[in-house]
Amino acid sequence: MLNIYVLTLFPEFFESPFSVSIIKRACDKGLVKIELIDIRDFSHDKHRKVDDYPYGGGCGMVMKPEPIFEAVEYVDKKINAKNRRIILLSPQGKIFNQSLAQDLSKEEHLVFICGHYEGIDERVKTIVTDEISIGDFILTGGEVPALAVVDAVIRLVPGVLGSSESPHDESFCNGLLEYPQYTRPQVYRNLKVPDVLLSGNHKEIELYRRKEALKKTREKRPDLFNKLELNNNDNRLLE
Amino acid sequence: MLNIYVLTLFPEFFESPFSVSIIKRACDKGLVKIELIDIRDFSHDKHRKVDDYPYGGGCGMVMKPEPIFEAVEYVDKKINAKNRRIILLSPQGKIFNQSLAQDLSKEEHLVFICGHYEGIDERVKTIVTDEISIGDFILTGGEVPALAVVDAVIRLVPGVLGSSESPHDESFCNGLLEYPQYTRPQVYRNLKVPDVLLSGNHKEIELYRRKEALKKTREKRPDLFNKLELNNNDNRLLE
Repeated sequence: MLNIYVLTLFPEFFESPFSVSIIKRACDKGLVKIELIDIRDFSHDKHRKVDDYPYGGGCGMVMKPEPIFEAVEYVDKKINAKNRRIILLSPQGKIFNQSLAQDLSKEEHLVFICGHYEGIDERVKTIVTDEISIGDFILTGGEVPALAVVDAVIRLVPGVLGSSESPHDESFCNGLLEYPQYTRPQVYRNLKVPDVLLSGNHKEIELYRRKEALKKTREKRPDLFNKLELNNNDNRLLE
Repeated sequence: MLNIYVLTLFPEFFESPFSVSIIKRACDKGLVKIELIDIRDFSHDKHRKVDDYPYGGGCGMVMKPEPIFEAVEYVDKKINAKNRRIILLSPQGKIFNQSLAQDLSKEEHLVFICGHYEGIDERVKTIVTDEISIGDFILTGGEVPALAVVDAVIRLVPGVLGSSESPHDESFCNGLLEYPQYTRPQVYRNLKVPDVLLSGNHKEIELYRRKEALKKTREKRPDLFNKLELNNNDNRLLE
């Protein structure tokens, strides 16, 4: 079972996302357990204050180290295990990707610290095992990226997805964007499904899909395309 | 005012995230208005079906084009304006970043289509103005990335952030990761705040912060570092 602990100033943020779709199903099946922990519960201040002014000046407030250290210790006592990852969501982190999601999905205990992006005391990083960013954009806090990581990881936990929805030719697994998909009707507002997909010729369909995936990747994500190792067939398809 | 329309199969997903923190405040202030639209309401099927098998075979279901086309038309009728962006969240999209967030924050109407990542009929892309991905990882659906984009965009809408929390030396604005932040106490568990931040010497503090931001970017994000145009001062700091 995958145990997830989310340390946040806004536990209520997660209520509805954790109650729908795949995440809910994973919890209902007993494959995943999520605990929300309010960082404010570890404040020593009677006003439950968790931030303070930055040393050296500047605007914005910085999250204090003590409540976060103590919240992590609270979790560590419960877990009583060394095999856990302490993940800080931060714009300075390593960029999250599918291979990191696969890696995290094999763990037993994941602890997420949702910082607020005005700043977090740098000393918190001494107790963190992974500093993760979901991309080069600024969010209100670490809640949205924690949700993204949790969602990407949970669907990889064995048994969470049914066999009919298992990861098939998914984007990024083979370094390619996915080929175009079509369903009924065959013609909608004068837009037609490509003939080859209606042909029943599986060999042709496979070649068409490979070609479209290669073309799409080359056009939209040259960074991914340049990392591909193309074979002779691929080169022929692209000509 | 920024008007946001979210087309989704899971409107309930957004309830709690849209009810906390900055997003709630922006809506309460009348700076942003968000409408959730259930794509299932536009199904023609008595079972409210919105997906079907893929042409050409393969596992997974594909979202049908009709309910999405009609949901977008429903919004278009309300808006009665051409100046809107129709954003499809998809792993095949352009990678979201802070400059795209700034661009979107200047619009009046943003329509988000949350696909489900098993697939969406390719013809939907003919009515989309922006196909956006938040990164190279697979999520259950477009809800999490829609939330990320909405969060990043809303905080840039003028008046949403108070002056004390305004974007200051934020990551990515100047192409650098942010310098380390510290707050009280000066010493916590033997971890000390760097002396320079306690010195009161503003010139020294500024140099320290610039140096740390440069070092951190070079170490953690060589891709960003290589895009920087360093001046002589920066080169001296890095030596």
